[in-house]
Order: sequence, then C-alpha cells, then structure tokens
Amino acid sequence: MDRTDDQHRLTDLTVHVALSGAFEGAYRSGENTTLLPTDSQKNAVYALAAERGPEPVEEFGLALGRHFLAGNPEVECAQVHLVQHAWNRLGERHSFTAAESARRTATVSATRSGASVCAGIDGLMLLNTTGSEFRGFRRDRYTTLPEASDRILASRVRARWVRRSLDGTDWDDEYATARESMTSAFVDTYSTSLQQTLLVMGERVLTDCPDIARVHLSLSNVHHLPALSLYGLQGVVEEKAQRVYVASAQPHGVIEGTVTRNDTDGMAASDPAWTAAEGWPW
Amino acid sequence: MDRTDDQHRLTDLTVHVALSGAFEGAYRSGENTTLLPTDSQKNAVYALAAERGPEPVEEFGLALGRHFLAGNPEVECAQVHLVQHAWNRLGERHSFTAAESARRTATVSATRSGASVCAGIDGLMLLNTTGSEFRGFRRDRYTTLPEASDRILASRVRARWVRRSLDGTDWDDEYATARESMTSAFVDTYSTSLQQTLLVMGERVLTDCPDIARVHLSLSNVHHLPALSLYGLQGVVEEKAQRVYVASAQPHGVIEGTVTRNDTDGMAASDPAWTAAEGWPW
Amino acid sequence: MDRTDDQHRLTDLTVHVALSGAFEGAYRSGENTTLLPTDSQKNAVYALAAERGPEPVEEFGLALGRHFLAGNPEVECAQVHLVQHAWNRLGERHSFTAAESARRTATVSATRSGASVCAGIDGLMLLNTTGSEFRGFRRDRYTTLPEASDRILASRVRARWVRRSLDGTDWDDEYATARESMTSAFVDTYSTSLQQTLLVMGERVLTDCPDIARVHLSLSNVHHLPALSLYGLQGVVEEKAQRVYVASAQPHGVIEGTVTRNDTDGMAASDPAWTAAEGWPW
Amino acid sequence: MDRTDDQHRLTDLTVHVALSGAFEGAYRSGENTTLLPTDSQKNAVYALAAERGPEPVEEFGLALGRHFLAGNPEVECAQVHLVQHAWNRLGERHSFTAAESARRTATVSATRSGASVCAGIDGLMLLNTTGSEFRGFRRDRYTTLPEASDRILASRVRARWVRRSLDGTDWDDEYATARESMTSAFVDTYSTSLQQTLLVMGERVLTDCPDIARVHLSLSNVHHLPALSLYGLQGVVEEKAQRVYVASAQPHGVIEGTVTRNDTDGMAASDPAWTAAEGWPW
Repeated sequence: MDRTDDQHRLTDLTVHVALSGAFEGAYRSGENTTLLPTDSQKNAVYALAAERGPEPVEEFGLALGRHFLAGNPEVECAQVHLVQHAWNRLGERHSFTAAESARRTATVSATRSGASVCAGIDGLMLLNTTGSEFRGFRRDRYTTLPEASDRILASRVRARWVRRSLDGTDWDDEYATARESMTSAFVDTYSTSLQQTLLVMGERVLTDCPDIARVHLSLSNVHHLPALSLYGLQGVVEEKAQRVYVASAQPHGVIEGTVTRNDTDGMAASDPAWTAAEGWPW
Repeated sequence: MDRTDDQHRLTDLTVHVALSGAFEGAYRSGENTTLLPTDSQKNAVYALAAERGPEPVEEFGLALGRHFLAGNPEVECAQVHLVQHAWNRLGERHSFTAAESARRTATVSATRSGASVCAGIDGLMLLNTTGSEFRGFRRDRYTTLPEASDRILASRVRARWVRRSLDGTDWDDEYATARESMTSAFVDTYSTSLQQTLLVMGERVLTDCPDIARVHLSLSNVHHLPALSLYGLQGVVEEKAQRVYVASAQPHGVIEGTVTRNDTDGMAASDPAWTAAEGWPW
Repeated sequence: MDRTDDQHRLTDLTVHVALSGAFEGAYRSGENTTLLPTDSQKNAVYALAAERGPEPVEEFGLALGRHFLAGNPEVECAQVHLVQHAWNRLGERHSFTAAESARRTATVSATRSGASVCAGIDGLMLLNTTGSEFRGFRRDRYTTLPEASDRILASRVRARWVRRSLDGTDWDDEYATARESMTSAFVDTYSTSLQQTLLVMGERVLTDCPDIARVHLSLSNVHHLPALSLYGLQGVVEEKAQRVYVASAQPHGVIEGTVTRNDTDGMAASDPAWTAAEGWPW
Repeated sequence: MDRTDDQHRLTDLTVHVALSGAFEGAYRSGENTTLLPTDSQKNAVYALAAERGPEPVEEFGLALGRHFLAGNPEVECAQVHLVQHAWNRLGERHSFTAAESARRTATVSATRSGASVCAGIDGLMLLNTTGSEFRGFRRDRYTTLPEASDRILASRVRARWVRRSLDGTDWDDEYATARESMTSAFVDTYSTSLQQTLLVMGERVLTDCPDIARVHLSLSNVHHLPALSLYGLQGVVEEKAQRVYVASAQPHGVIEGTVTRNDTDGMAASDPAWTAAEGWPW
C-alpha cells in the first residue's frame, strides 16, 4: 500500500514464482550451490514490492522475472504468476472494503531471449436470466438432455490474452477495456450455445483492443435447472411471477476456445504460460 | 428470479432448515411416520419460493417456519437459516454479475408460542491502512508482541441483530442502515483496540436503527505484518512510498461482543439462533 | 513431536482458544490493560506444548485452560478446542504418512468453579452398501421421495461426549472404545432410518464406556442416488454386477440426537461446549 | 460398487472429460449439430461404469476415450482424467470407511492414432522428523534463511508416470509398486535437499517398475518452523523431550522434476496430459 499522500492506495496480490533451467546438477550431486531457496524467492517478491511498487502487476512481474534471471545464471525461464484481489475505497482517505470476487491476473515468462506477458482475469461471474437457448445438438444413446428454448446462462469466466508486443502498453486501460468487451458481449448476445457466446466475446476483445493478438476463454457453465420440474413439483406448485432454479455446482461443463487475429497466428505458441492456459489442470 | 417485467430481478439464496421436537419415538421404534424427509424439506423451500417469492429473506424464512410447524405437530422449533448472495445488475434488463463476498443472513426460529428473527451479515471485509494502534495490553511471560502505534486494521465482520418486535419492519431498509452504520463506524473511528472499535460499531447500529434491541459482532482480526521486518529485510531494502505487509490468514484472533439497549436486556436470551451466534463453532 | 528416543513420536494439532469474562471495561475505555493479546494466547499454546507435551489432547486442553484462568483474573471461562490430525508410522523410526481424515477432538471449558471436557470425533466417514431402507415416512404435498427398500447408507459422523467425572480417565482408551462402538454399531445395524441408527450408535457408546454420561451425534446423510434412474438411462443401459450411484454433496440432510444415561440427565446442560455441540452452526 | 457376491466392492471416482477437435464450425455458425452436450458426456461416464465396471481406472479411462472418439468424428483428442478416492473395508461384507487422503489418478489421452495413459498419485503426505538438512545453498541479497542441519522434511507428493507401452499392464500392481517405491525412497534417504530426495524417489520408481519410462514428481515443501525461535520464546520456555513446530501452509515451495529412462528420452513429449503434468497450474 502507498501511504505517502493523505489518500492511501491499496494493492492486494498473491504471487507465484517458478524457476526452471539447468539445475540437474543439484538434483544429482546433493550440492546446493545453484539453488536459490524458495524462501529467498518469496523475500524477493516483498523486497521488489517495497523498492519499486507492485503496480501494474504486469510490470511488477516483468521486474521480478528480470531479477531472477540476473541473479541465477542457471535459470532459463523465470515464470511469475500474479493474482490481484480488488478492493473498493470507503470514504476519501484510508479505508477499503473487499470488492467482487473476479481477480486480475498476469503471467510473465522471462527468458534469456526476452519476456512475454499473458494477462487475464479469473472468476468473473456473468449471468443472463433469458436470451439463451441450446437446441439441435448431437444426440447419442446416452443423451437425455431436453432442448432448451429459454434457459438461464451463467458462467464463471477465465480469460487470458497476449499482445503483439510489450511496447507502450497501458496495462490498466487494456485490462479495463478487455473486461468490458467480454462483459458487454455476454450481455448483448442472444446465445444459441456457450460456444457461440465465447467466440463473440473473444472477437469483441480483438476488436476493442487492437494490440491484443489472441485471447483464450474458458467458460464454466453453471447450470441452472428449473427446480419444480427437477424435483417433480410441477403439478403441485403454482409458480407465480418468479421462476425458481437450482444452481448446480457439480457436475458442470466447461467450454474453451482461443480467438486469434489472422496476422498473428503463430504467436505465443511456445509461451509456457499460454500452453498452461490452453491446457487442462491435471 | 422474477421474469415478469422487462427488467428481471435475481435472488440467490442458500437455505438451511432444522426441525426439532418430539421425535424420540422415531429414533426408538424405527417407525418413520413422524419423519418428514429432509428431501421434502428441501422441496418445500423451492415450492414456497415459487408460490410466494423469496424476498425479503426474513419474511421468506418466517413463511418456511410456519409451514413446517403447521404440517408437523411434533415440531417444537423450526429453525430456518438463509444466506443471500449479492449480484449487481449489468445493463437495464436481464444481465447480472456476482457482487462482493459479503452475504446478508437471516435466522428464523419458529415455535408454537411465536417466531423470532435474527438478521445479520457474514464476510464483510473492512480495512483501514492507518488510524489504528494497539498498546498497553497485558504482558505475560509468553508475550512477545510489540506495541503498535500505527497498524493496519483489517477485519472480516460477522454481525447478528434482533429487533424489539417483528411488527412493521422494512427489512431491506434496516439491513442497509445497519450495514452502513457498522461500516461508517469502522471508517470513522481511531482504533485503540478491535474491542473498542467493536463497541463503537455496535452502538452506532443501536443509534441508527431504533428498533434493533441488541447486536452481536464477531470481528476476525486479519493481521497485517510489516513484511521487511518479519522477514529480516529492514537493513537490506529501502522502502519507498509504499509499505508492504503480509496478510496472515492463520493463526488469527477473533474479537466478539454483544451490545444491548438498556431497556431490552433480557431479550433473545433463549433464542436458539442467538445462542448460536454468541457461541463458538465447535 | 518427541525425538528423545530412536523411535520418534508425532502429534499434529490445531488449537482454538476462547476467553470470556469481565472485559467490558476494555471495550468501553479503550484501555487495554486487561487484554491478553491473541498473539500471546497463541504463544502459550506452543510454550505449553514444549514444556509439558501435547498429549493426550484432553489433558493438554485442561492445562491450557488452567493457564489462562491463572494469569487473567477477568476470565470467567477459558474454552480450548483441540483437533488432532492422525498420522501413521512408516518404518520403525522417524517417518510418517498422513492417515485418514477423521479427527479426534476435545473441548475444554475451564471456569473458576471447575473444568469440563467434551471429547469427540469429526469427519468419520462410514458407508454400508446394503442393509438400509427408508420407508413409511411422512408425506406432505411437496414430498416426492420414493420409498427405498435397499439403499446405500453413507454418513459423515460428528460425535461429542462427556464423562461422569474427569477422575481416572484413560483418554486414549476411551476414545478408541467410543469410536469402535460407533463404527461397529453402524456396521452391525440393519437401518430403517438414520435416526434409528443414531440411537443404536449412541446406546452402544454408553454400554461400552461406563463412564460416559451422554453422547451427542450428528450424522450427515451423504445421499447416494442410483445414477441410471436419476439420469433417465434405465432403459438404455444394462447394469451388470455393479451398481452405479451419484454421491450427492449438496443438498443433504443431517440427523442429530443426544443419548443420555438415565442417572445423569441434567449433566452438561450448562456446559458451553455442549450447548455448541447440540446447536446449529450459524 | 459391485454387490454381486456377499462381499461387496466399492469404487469411488471423480471423472473429468475434455474433448477437443474440429469444432470451429459450431463456434462460428451457432449450429450445434456437432456438439455432444457435456450432460451426455457425464451420462456416458455413468453408463460405461454400469456396463463394464470402473476398474482399473486406467482401463475405464481408455474405454471412455474410445467411446468419445467413436461417436464424434470431429474429436481429435478425448482426454479423460480420473481420480480414485480410497476406502477401507470394515468387517467382511458391505461396510467401508474413508481411507487416507492420497488419491490414485489416471489421465487418458485418446486420439485417432492411439491412446496414452499418464498414471499417478495426488496428495500423498510424507514426513520425516529427522534425517534432513539444507545447507550451502545460494545466498543473494534477499536471502535470510538460516542453514538447517536437522530439519523436518514434510511433503505433499504428486506424481505422474508413463509406460513404454500399454500392453500387458497390471495397473493395480504397478500403482502399488510405484507408490511403495516413492514412499520407501523418501523414508530411506538422508536428504540434503528436496531436489536430491526427488531424484532418488524417481530413480527408485524406474528401478522397481521396469516398464515405466519416465516419472514426473512435484513435491510441495510443507515447511516446519521451530515454534519457540519463530515466536521469540527460546529464552522463556524450556523445551523437554518434544520439539514443537509450526507447519506452514502458506507461503511454501514446490520442487519439481522429471526422471527419464535413457532409452525412452523422447517419449510422452507431445502427450497433452504429460505437458499438463509438467506445467504450472495457471
């Protein structure tokens, strides 16, 4: 936090550091001379936050990556993953309250040949109470899902994006624009499937943020099942103005996809953070 | 959710039901004729939400309590605990995004002689970056805590309150006022201890909400330790404008207290929900 | 851990301390002279573990309770809740692996007039693949649950018990006996309801442990629903030797009850730990 | 569960399915004819469990992978991740209790050109109360960690391994051997670093399991800090036979590494499950 002026500023981060490289000797010999303790890595995060400040997280991550490369010749890739928890200001001076659960994220991969940044958001919850259907899907012998002509669409959104280059970025502005693009696309779009909504959301990001080269979206489908039919109460209960749904945490589906600008097709292909973003977490 | 008008409304609840009474026979005989399945209790929650609507949660809980008393002569106390998750509107019509993590709560205890309501809030996170000290406390042989003249004060607030009577309550308005009272008291008060802050918060609620008879507050103390001294980096790192702290989840302290209006001292003493609110969770 | 002999011993505890009493002055005056910091309370737990050892947990809790009473005249009740995580020995000397998820618990309430101990267990998962039915229960207009003549019975068991007196207790032996009593009763009993099973479990504890005065049981009912009928696949899939079930975490029922020895009916009525054990967690 | 014989058998699984392939059309057109609902994918898991049984999990995963390839020409890779929760038998017939927290895992990647299996274990907790040091490590300006000549070594182990081929595997036997190899290596080895312990564990697996080609290990370092020095109590408290430690959940280090048989160096390089196992989870 910055307590210089009367109006304080608060930054709340969780930081992960992963160093990889030519450490085989340490595993084989039992000699530790090349091993920077994870405790020192943790200290470096706090020290650089004190020395240079932690915002924007993308640049703080780049500084951390450079720091680990500089001090450890064995390191080939220093990856720094940062998660920013949002707080809202109370009053004018030094009070805050925890804001919504969506978190801004950044993953920096710093190597000897350069650094890349994978920016993003986790846990953005969006919900439409109408304007969504799911019909005409494939039916196999195990399919029992009825077609839905008016369904609730609720999704927990994870997104990751990369830029054409790191030059001249206003990270805060680009994050705000990308988030607003995804949100407005979700709100505006009549959805025939979460897949179709995903594409619209990704395309909107590319349209609104000209320097973003590609965006990966992972949309958890938080199913909302009509309670009365689910529990056999249709004939028993007269449903008035409201409609009652069961929000089902488990099991649930996840729809993923990457939207790429034509002229940047190959980008990020070998970025380990990007590979992780597109992979499955097991 | 209410989808009657163009502008939909969304209510997101988690509901717990606890029935207690003269059920000894069922335990002894293995005959189940007096046992309403928990599955039917769950169905009743959805059915009454459909038939009468789920808001405000205090009145929905009262309706559920009456329902279980009416249908089950063995029940002596039907307790209904409701947790409301907040969503913010996106646009003008049918879109929403999950709001902050604080949840409005209500616990209804319905008996043959009447019903009581214990209203409240869970998980309200408040933080002051200055305006707090902790000094002059008791020191025993195990005390190593240094005195703090300028500390970060962060707290996760749980509150429960009861009214003089249930008549003529605008539950939404009273919830908003009580929440704003606690928040503004936390923001305004120079804190010499979390205990002192707690009392100010409770008194503010009683002042601003004339029909609330007593309020119980449980303030989790989310310790913020200066990172550089905690990790032995004071001499090494020059801290600039910002100050860096470690937010410590475990272990942590919890400060509790009940603030009561003088003329309502005995109230709620036998309310099982109140007893639970004042007790420890094990 | 005890590393005196070649064969080390390991004890893994989580400890909660709650002090209550005549602290009103500290809340009112903002003077902290009567407040022992929660940090010092935490230190006392580690210090007494070092000085006297942490086992058995019931006696460690009593020592902690006495410590807080002795040093703080304002304290009227010092409550200490201990949770013991189990580890199994690997080999003969100093290696261990985390054991099952059930945890032994103890809650000590130490006052100026004496101390009480509420011993117990949390998270004991028991499951019978047959030998259970649920029929003849009450049906109201919202009841849709079919009668079950051969159901899976799975329960997460929480138990709390108190003794006639604290004299001459072999806490380890009594814990082992009480646990085995509950387990064998669950295994042996043909269940017509979880309520009936609960009573048999409680009575078995009182029979096998002559010094236990009363036992409270809380049985979470982990419903196992036949997958094929739940998902409309009965006609489609031929189920062979096996039966496939969906273990449903939410929503679920909880059955509670207290079994008391006739001649000890009033015991524990005012013990705050017991009140908490019998109450609902909100 | 298998309830054919008097002695029932219980299998407790969590299953994840991920289908990828030529689905671009569905995202673009809003037509859903190529989309098999996630609901049908879930149904297929239950249906195949009923029709063919769910054990061993590696073969159940292969059957599921083949099923999704067969029915969906657009699918290029069907990945199935299975997690098996262990239960111990109570008595001789149909009763069980939840066993330890370690889970057996399997990840199947089924493509048109063949299938691969990545077997493994999650959450295996191992702890040595002595026989571990950490000295001679790199020190930079932020390093404050003291050298440790007798430290507690505790680790939560995640492992993944692949075989030379899928032919003739006794999956249950190989899992038991690999697990025992890792455990005994952890117990037997005097540790100069977790890196060195990791290599010994991996080599032991390759020695004991001749058909395993490579193994990836991820060892979370659950730091155990001496409580008295951590909290400034060394001079105050006399520590007897026992030693008291604080098990620190956060922050913590994770040490990773892959051990490969020389003649199988290139194997698994393109297996998406393997890439995920070696990557970081963000």
